[in-house]
Amino acid sequence: MVLERINSPEDLKQCSMGDLNTLAGEMRNFLIERASKHMGHVGPDLGFVEATIALHRVFDTPKDKIVFDVSHQTYPHKMLTGRKKAYMEEASYDEVGPYTDPKESPYDLFSIGHTSTSIDLAIGLAKARDLLSGTEKVVAVIGDGSLSGGMALEGLSIAGEQESQLLIILNDNEMSIAENHGGMYKGLKRLRESNGQAEDNLFRAMGLEYLYEEQGNDVESLVKALEKAKSYEKPVVLHIHTAKGKGLKFAEEDKESWHWHLPFHLETGKTREEYNFPGEDIGELTAEFLLAKMKKDPAVLVITAGVLGGMGFYAKQRKEAGKQFVDVGIAEQTGVTLACGAAKNGAKPVFFTSATFLQRAYDQISHDAAINSLPITMVVNSASILGMRDKTHLGLYLLAMANSIPNLLIFAPAFKGEYFSLLDWALEQQEHPVLIFAPEGNVLEDEAPVKKSFFPVSYQEIPRGKKVAIFATGSLYEEGREGAKNFEKKTGIKPSLINPGILSHLDKAYLENLEKDHELVVVLEDGILSGGFAEKIASFYSLKPMKVLSLGLEKEFYDEYDLEALMKEYHMDRESMVERILEVL
Amino acid sequence: MVLERINSPEDLKQCSMGDLNTLAGEMRNFLIERASKHMGHVGPDLGFVEATIALHRVFDTPKDKIVFDVSHQTYPHKMLTGRKKAYMEEASYDEVGPYTDPKESPYDLFSIGHTSTSIDLAIGLAKARDLLSGTEKVVAVIGDGSLSGGMALEGLSIAGEQESQLLIILNDNEMSIAENHGGMYKGLKRLRESNGQAEDNLFRAMGLEYLYEEQGNDVESLVKALEKAKSYEKPVVLHIHTAKGKGLKFAEEDKESWHWHLPFHLETGKTREEYNFPGEDIGELTAEFLLAKMKKDPAVLVITAGVLGGMGFYAKQRKEAGKQFVDVGIAEQTGVTLACGAAKNGAKPVFFTSATFLQRAYDQISHDAAINSLPITMVVNSASILGMRDKTHLGLYLLAMANSIPNLLIFAPAFKGEYFSLLDWALEQQEHPVLIFAPEGNVLEDEAPVKKSFFPVSYQEIPRGKKVAIFATGSLYEEGREGAKNFEKKTGIKPSLINPGILSHLDKAYLENLEKDHELVVVLEDGILSGGFAEKIASFYSLKPMKVLSLGLEKEFYDEYDLEALMKEYHMDRESMVERILEVL
Repeated sequence: MVLERINSPEDLKQCSMGDLNTLAGEMRNFLIERASKHMGHVGPDLGFVEATIALHRVFDTPKDKIVFDVSHQTYPHKMLTGRKKAYMEEASYDEVGPYTDPKESPYDLFSIGHTSTSIDLAIGLAKARDLLSGTEKVVAVIGDGSLSGGMALEGLSIAGEQESQLLIILNDNEMSIAENHGGMYKGLKRLRESNGQAEDNLFRAMGLEYLYEEQGNDVESLVKALEKAKSYEKPVVLHIHTAKGKGLKFAEEDKESWHWHLPFHLETGKTREEYNFPGEDIGELTAEFLLAKMKKDPAVLVITAGVLGGMGFYAKQRKEAGKQFVDVGIAEQTGVTLACGAAKNGAKPVFFTSATFLQRAYDQISHDAAINSLPITMVVNSASILGMRDKTHLGLYLLAMANSIPNLLIFAPAFKGEYFSLLDWALEQQEHPVLIFAPEGNVLEDEAPVKKSFFPVSYQEIPRGKKVAIFATGSLYEEGREGAKNFEKKTGIKPSLINPGILSHLDKAYLENLEKDHELVVVLEDGILSGGFAEKIASFYSLKPMKVLSLGLEKEFYDEYDLEALMKEYHMDRESMVERILEVL
Repeated sequence: MVLERINSPEDLKQCSMGDLNTLAGEMRNFLIERASKHMGHVGPDLGFVEATIALHRVFDTPKDKIVFDVSHQTYPHKMLTGRKKAYMEEASYDEVGPYTDPKESPYDLFSIGHTSTSIDLAIGLAKARDLLSGTEKVVAVIGDGSLSGGMALEGLSIAGEQESQLLIILNDNEMSIAENHGGMYKGLKRLRESNGQAEDNLFRAMGLEYLYEEQGNDVESLVKALEKAKSYEKPVVLHIHTAKGKGLKFAEEDKESWHWHLPFHLETGKTREEYNFPGEDIGELTAEFLLAKMKKDPAVLVITAGVLGGMGFYAKQRKEAGKQFVDVGIAEQTGVTLACGAAKNGAKPVFFTSATFLQRAYDQISHDAAINSLPITMVVNSASILGMRDKTHLGLYLLAMANSIPNLLIFAPAFKGEYFSLLDWALEQQEHPVLIFAPEGNVLEDEAPVKKSFFPVSYQEIPRGKKVAIFATGSLYEEGREGAKNFEKKTGIKPSLINPGILSHLDKAYLENLEKDHELVVVLEDGILSGGFAEKIASFYSLKPMKVLSLGLEKEFYDEYDLEALMKEYHMDRESMVERILEVL
């Protein structure tokens, strides 16, 4: 086995082309085997095996610097840079993270998980090299899907002004997570079909040199192409055509479903039974609800930025939605601002993405939606400690971020009926941009009458108690409810339990009323405390005798955390919450 | 005078071409006259007189929808849409705002003040039109400078996929606020020089149709070009070449200085004496400091995103800085992430922009800088109630926004020596991204020994008092100090006065120590309370008897506010602050 001999990129330089081809096959087999047993990205990595081998063969890493966009295609890179055990031995699968991480290896330059950053990072690396008279080569690897993000396009233009070495590899597998959207993809198609010769070349329009290599899954062709590209002493784009999912039939045939996948049976491609979660899927329910609403109302417009599954808009639902669905590609800024334009002209837009990706649209939510009081609805998933747990994908900061925007209503509904009633209300009202955190975890049946109107603010009290009031926000409602029960068991005192629903504005009348017969307000914050809901409550009572106990996270990045341990550490689970309450009472 | 007859765009349709030419001259004269007496944008408006006339002649506004990017070029538009008095009569100059505003006129679709949003807004308007079977035409007007912003480029691509009418007018005056940066501008130059015929057309690469009109300051040519463009039932770019500052010699010759200008003498172009502020300019001092540091250290790299004056980097300073200065154009995302790449490779980057524009880079500050613990320094101006006061340009939310990002240190220095020592420290440390709010208002001499190190946190106590502690943050230090004096005069009690310096992290030891002999902590917050510094203090004491009085703004948008009145309303000035303290004591 060639792979046995490869412990660092240095070893690749001793290999024959035949060896490198064999190596690609071996790596691909291990990747497929691992994917069948360990969740993770599939298509992006299978398509980038040969290119990774060629890159490490031609360049002198880690002296030469390679930045991988998103870095979800770096499993082959990790295999070649001292971490192959994590791909070859099941017991070691968890020894590497899913993205590049400088803590893992000197071959990984940055922790990366969002798209479209690689060109800008590479320009910065090159700029520092030039200032400090370095000689290393700098390479950015970016997929065609990531190219739709504005900062990648900004980067292309700024790279086009640079006067020293910078190689941008466009890994074109004709796909984003799902299909690409945007006129630029017609241009890329023309380039692929003309072997790079077509007119109106985006990269040349940005002031860059351009090379094309059709054989993006052939090591020898890639080595030649890279040798040539490496010789340029100015910025150049090497556009390579690769096959997403190469070598795994299911992934080649259904690229969208196999961008990322749960463990599966190698023979059938079916997800392993133990990963088939029972229960309802809030995303699928959301798509169902919106499709029904679209049929009744042509003004309803669903917009997403490249992440389609989270709100249940798979190929079937997209087809059903027709012109009432727009995928803008990975372009959250455009997603939000397009929604603003549509709202202004009478549409009822819903923009969906994951919490961590909405960060890209902060300015647009503020400047385009909120200043203009445009009734756009934004729905995000994973804005919860129960959501995604890689440090580059955390939704723990979104409330704090969004809470700085005036005129924006932010809701974290706890119950299913509440969530859909809220979504409906948000689409029909004409006053405010609305941000909704879709419930994570178990989909809960309503424990209070479902409201029809959600602003001005009024909290749901379930039920009234005394002495202690527990605010259980959004996806942490269940934990708070169980905590309240435990507290009652332990003390005989029935606390008030509140589902605030809205996290951007206070129900001041309710809070004042609590002062009558409560001495402690407990806030269970689903994220960091800094800038969140608990600080607002504490601030409200800051001249009053009411004590406020804030149970939430410190302002830190958390990586691949153990949910139970983290909640325990911060007294957020149903048991330790009670201990902490008893301490401060 | 033709302008006398024009009360709405409808009236333009009755004019001969000769009349329209005369009108352009009349409008330009009024604009110049007004600019000489009223601060505001100059160059963008003078260059866009003819195009505005042609637009309102050819299109049927307000049924047809025109979105102006930034909307700083809309003085001519306002003159033609019922607001000419505000440009013709000095007593009425203040009756209009500097940007489009739907509250001002039905011809203004959005409040806009940031760049690069127009294409996305227009796509949204067109999308809603198509869903609701409307027939109105949709037009986006965008300058070449705004085109460097990523969301504009995203928009071009998404527009390139649309199948119905959408006109994008590229108003190319060969300038951003200062000169343009990015390879795309080489492409635009080739297009201008070839009358639109050059190869590698950016717009066609994005899937759009393309037209070129060289005579961008000739009404008749523009009317013809617009008639043609209007007939397209698919997205088309009409690239017009205009002259920024046309008709005002000074503005034609020094486009950067005359993008926006203070009132001036018509004969000499010199700023009117009453607008020559005495005192030190923190921006110019910053440039001086950084240029001196650059000379000693080749690793220092100053980056800006199109706004050069705020940190004192005018043409002379840019030349002096040479390769150690990068202007990325209006591309804040790239500015921050390029800085991250540079920091990773040994440079000491400082990124500068205005507070309101840093909003665009939230995700990059979090994902690229903070997660990676990269030592980039960001300096912003106008992150204060004393800063810019148009609702689209407020810096009142930046602290709250940035406070949601772990690992980011946020400083609001009060004193000159403190600010420069901090800047130096930030550039030399290797642990954290640092965000510095440059002091606004009077540049203050230090009232305490200048620190050399700024993290871990330690507050500056000036001096220790008792009973009441007043935290006077950043640019509000002076107000807080005077408030403290007034309080002492009134009560005989000397309060503690604190310059916290850092607003992202608490000096917990200090806060605990205050509990010994203080019963009230007053926090003077330079911005909104939500998510700011005061909420953190309130939260810190939320289980303690210490009272916290938060003096800051409600989470709202404020427009063209009267500073004194606003501070009085929120008890933030030196007098009413004391009244409020006495109330709660």
